[in-house]
Amino acid sequence: MEVLAQRAGIPPEEVIRLNGNENPFGPSPEVVKALGSFQHYNHYPDPDQRQLREALSGYLGASPDQIVAGNGSDELIDMILRMFLGTGENIVIPTPTFGMYAFSAEVCGGKVKSVPRNEIFDIDVEATVSAVDEKTKAIFLASPNNPTGNTASEGQIRALLATGAIVVVDETYYEFCGQTMLSLVDEFHNLIVLRTFSKWAGLAGLRIGLGVMNPDIALTMMSMKSPYNVNLAAEVALLASLGDRHTLLGRVQAIVAERKRMIGLLEQIPGIQVWPSQANFVLCRLPEGRGQEIFEGLCRRGIFLRYFNTPQLRDYIRASVGLPEETDQVIRALSELVEA
Amino acid sequence: MEVLAQRAGIPPEEVIRLNGNENPFGPSPEVVKALGSFQHYNHYPDPDQRQLREALSGYLGASPDQIVAGNGSDELIDMILRMFLGTGENIVIPTPTFGMYAFSAEVCGGKVKSVPRNEIFDIDVEATVSAVDEKTKAIFLASPNNPTGNTASEGQIRALLATGAIVVVDETYYEFCGQTMLSLVDEFHNLIVLRTFSKWAGLAGLRIGLGVMNPDIALTMMSMKSPYNVNLAAEVALLASLGDRHTLLGRVQAIVAERKRMIGLLEQIPGIQVWPSQANFVLCRLPEGRGQEIFEGLCRRGIFLRYFNTPQLRDYIRASVGLPEETDQVIRALSELVEA
Repeated sequence: MEVLAQRAGIPPEEVIRLNGNENPFGPSPEVVKALGSFQHYNHYPDPDQRQLREALSGYLGASPDQIVAGNGSDELIDMILRMFLGTGENIVIPTPTFGMYAFSAEVCGGKVKSVPRNEIFDIDVEATVSAVDEKTKAIFLASPNNPTGNTASEGQIRALLATGAIVVVDETYYEFCGQTMLSLVDEFHNLIVLRTFSKWAGLAGLRIGLGVMNPDIALTMMSMKSPYNVNLAAEVALLASLGDRHTLLGRVQAIVAERKRMIGLLEQIPGIQVWPSQANFVLCRLPEGRGQEIFEGLCRRGIFLRYFNTPQLRDYIRASVGLPEETDQVIRALSELVEA
Repeated sequence: MEVLAQRAGIPPEEVIRLNGNENPFGPSPEVVKALGSFQHYNHYPDPDQRQLREALSGYLGASPDQIVAGNGSDELIDMILRMFLGTGENIVIPTPTFGMYAFSAEVCGGKVKSVPRNEIFDIDVEATVSAVDEKTKAIFLASPNNPTGNTASEGQIRALLATGAIVVVDETYYEFCGQTMLSLVDEFHNLIVLRTFSKWAGLAGLRIGLGVMNPDIALTMMSMKSPYNVNLAAEVALLASLGDRHTLLGRVQAIVAERKRMIGLLEQIPGIQVWPSQANFVLCRLPEGRGQEIFEGLCRRGIFLRYFNTPQLRDYIRASVGLPEETDQVIRALSELVEA
């Protein structure tokens, strides 16, 4: 991105970075303060994550022994696969979705069975359940889903759980919608819910994700994880973020409001189809056959969105919800490029 | 440790923590300053580690495409094993040594062939080479070795490299001895050298290790690693540490001087056998059969060392080199406990 901006002659500070679903407000000011006064970076983190799990327990309303923290939720995805997926076994994923499920499954030597979502990107429960075979170890889905922005219903999740496979519900974008499957963890030993501090708390760079699951699975995961997997800056930042959650959740509300405004403005651009979103990004279909051209036009103006051109997402872009002035620039550029 | 101290009625700030080979001086003040002024914790790290690899290249004198940074060198150990070690295959390790080689190999479904070091903890090259069979994928060794403190010679490493197995030389404690195998990486495609910023730079809590290897292996490792494996605080801290390396290497010299003083004082305690050390810790054998009793006596005084009671290390303790006043307290307590 920096390279592209440089080529386009855009100074780094003028780049509009809306391709990673990052939090435009940054971390809590309390986080930066805490990181600048913490004096023990020379110590190793606690392998048992006692303080972390205790603090997360209070935030999530789950028991500490149901919680495992990871080096981003990416590490949790990987750990789940290393625990359950053997060579020649598979995972089932409703697609399009977040790329790490397939990436990690392949690194683990497993196979990926993709089941297309329907025309409104809703999970095709019947097809997903049918795809589960004797070699299926897990079903991975995101809710809200990335990049489609829609949630799965409790009924859908229950139907997937009934297969007996591990069902991983990745709630990375939970705070932007408020719908969670956390309350089902006590009921289903095969449910794992993932969360992260990357989005709502603006800590993507510090890498802190977490899983909530059956205590037996958590115990095994704790025993096989790298002892010092979560760094101390992440721990300090997580504690400071929870202490300042009122500020952070206020920002989440601002992002949700801006999402609504952004969708309204995008819908006014002729030829662009806008999808509803429960997350901090919006998925759009650009005029047919013009995705690449418009995407490159945006890059030349220093506006970086995420471009998709797969069979399922031909001519799509995903725009993270940024600051209002960023939205305005995106809308202006898109309008001009589409009309050109 | 905190729990033990609490039980012993020792306030946390009076605890002497010499069981993790941490740097007693903490990180560079420039690190804390940089972490407290960095404003982009909400951004994801660069998956290609461009800035990191460039900076490390300058420090190590290796090419950026030979370098991979990890979430601590623990992650590099794990990635190497995931790349090379299949189920039923094995690694060979001269023991006693750092526990993560065996731990990670077992998590990867591999086997561990331990080859005992000789009576002065030197690698038994002949036995190690003989242990390599058609299922051996890697030999792991630390130089200086943890917990024995001694280095491997270039001749020994060359003999191991001649087996054709991947040879991982973990130079975690390099800065405390100055002997490295880095110059052999260009010559041997099967050599991987590991380094870390945990010890010399006092960044154990931020998790930053690195591997130097053949560019082809590095390329594969970069393609299979978790994209955001190294957190931004680690990156910021690494750059600030390299900028202040003069201070940090001065502290390393102070630790080396304190190691010498500590060894001299330990040698005066009757019944304690002290091993020479090229690292930031000292290994001692306590009077026969009294290890547990003396270790517990130290804990009750709030002094935490690392205790070993394995067949190879019966009644051994390992003391990290701390501040002079910490050394004095350790010596006083050990003298009293041994004489008791």
